Amino acid sequence: RICAELDSLFGTGVLAGLSVLISAGPTREPIDPVRYISNRSSGKMGYALAEAAARAGAKVSLVTGPTALKVPNVQELSRVETAEDMYHCVMSKVSSANIYIGAAAVADYCPETAANRKIKKNRPEMVLTLRKTRDILSAVSGSAERPFTVGFAAETDQLEDYARQKLAAKSLDLVAANWVGRGQGGFENDDNALFVCWNGGHTYLPLASKTALAEQLIRLIAERYHAQNSAQNSR
Amino acid sequence: RICAELDSLFGTGVLAGLSVLISAGPTREPIDPVRYISNRSSGKMGYALAEAAARAGAKVSLVTGPTALKVPNVQELSRVETAEDMYHCVMSKVSSANIYIGAAAVADYCPETAANRKIKKNRPEMVLTLRKTRDILSAVSGSAERPFTVGFAAETDQLEDYARQKLAAKSLDLVAANWVGRGQGGFENDDNALFVCWNGGHTYLPLASKTALAEQLIRLIAERYHAQNSAQNSR
Repeated sequence: RICAELDSLFGTGVLAGLSVLISAGPTREPIDPVRYISNRSSGKMGYALAEAAARAGAKVSLVTGPTALKVPNVQELSRVETAEDMYHCVMSKVSSANIYIGAAAVADYCPETAANRKIKKNRPEMVLTLRKTRDILSAVSGSAERPFTVGFAAETDQLEDYARQKLAAKSLDLVAANWVGRGQGGFENDDNALFVCWNGGHTYLPLASKTALAEQLIRLIAERYHAQNSAQNSR
Repeated sequence: RICAELDSLFGTGVLAGLSVLISAGPTREPIDPVRYISNRSSGKMGYALAEAAARAGAKVSLVTGPTALKVPNVQELSRVETAEDMYHCVMSKVSSANIYIGAAAVADYCPETAANRKIKKNRPEMVLTLRKTRDILSAVSGSAERPFTVGFAAETDQLEDYARQKLAAKSLDLVAANWVGRGQGGFENDDNALFVCWNGGHTYLPLASKTALAEQLIRLIAERYHAQNSAQNSR
């Protein structure tokens, strides 16, 4: 802890001098003033990454959906609720970030319209039409001053395939993927295990506490970031 | 605090010797292993009622949906997730309860089928068919050894009307109703204000902390319970 603070103080952390923008937690998509659609993200992984990035010397800006977690020790904290809110908040900050880590579990679909009044339950059935939300990761990786862009994937099957597909489809620099519902940690757990891939490589980070895993992932992200930047600078 | 504990110890609390079953918090209705539908209940009012009922000398059994709250000081705590889980848990305990307080914000609708695998977001639109969940309050008030049954209502408009309708439609003994989204407390807030009605009467409990309000509501419930029971006994 003292070492980490000294590192950051004297600029020797692996992310010293860099700005890292992190999204965390779930989003909530209102059906009406009372009901909403959400997902099982606790925000723990994103918050652990924010703490680890700060310890590695980065200036961290955290954009978070609703969570029950203690506010982490970061430069800037923004609270948002919906995927649309998160999109606008992230995009307003992306041009000053060197690295973006999209650890939030952004709702993929939201109700087409949210009712202003509580919907009364007169009918035995209700049909909810959902539309796709904006794709924050693709917007970040496609932005003019594109940061090093890290995405997450949580899958119930074909983890490695989906992670590789996501890396390519969204032009990401790195994807960290975890299983859902296999006793391998992930959503709502304190532990997690990750498959991490990038262009030209991959690695497995075995089951560990989210704090320990966040440290390892931040080190890996710093490594890939510096490798890419020195390659670009020497071109 | 000490007085309350002495009251309960010597059986002079207003609910001394009675068993109170309380449901609290939201329920979560899975769309797939990751996504769910829920609502904005924090569980605070139900937990405050559980604490207040225990202080009033009752044996309290709390059935709770997922919340981020500290476990309250009660006899028995059961954690559930879906409306269906809550229905079975409550119904298994109802015959031994003198009073049932349905403070949970049970989802009225759940997805007709929950997918076993994470739904991939290939389509720009998604149609979700929801069906009504079981009505726990009506099941409790219609059960053979019916306890004194208290319901809650949270409404964005016509609060008093809806509360009266709910009292009649579900054969309840008392309904406590609060506004949603009017700066009058309620969901996710520490404060709340209530309109309370029963057959032949009503009252308003003005904006106060949920702890203070829970004390007042428990006193009111005890009063109505004892009034009803002495009336029945003297018939």
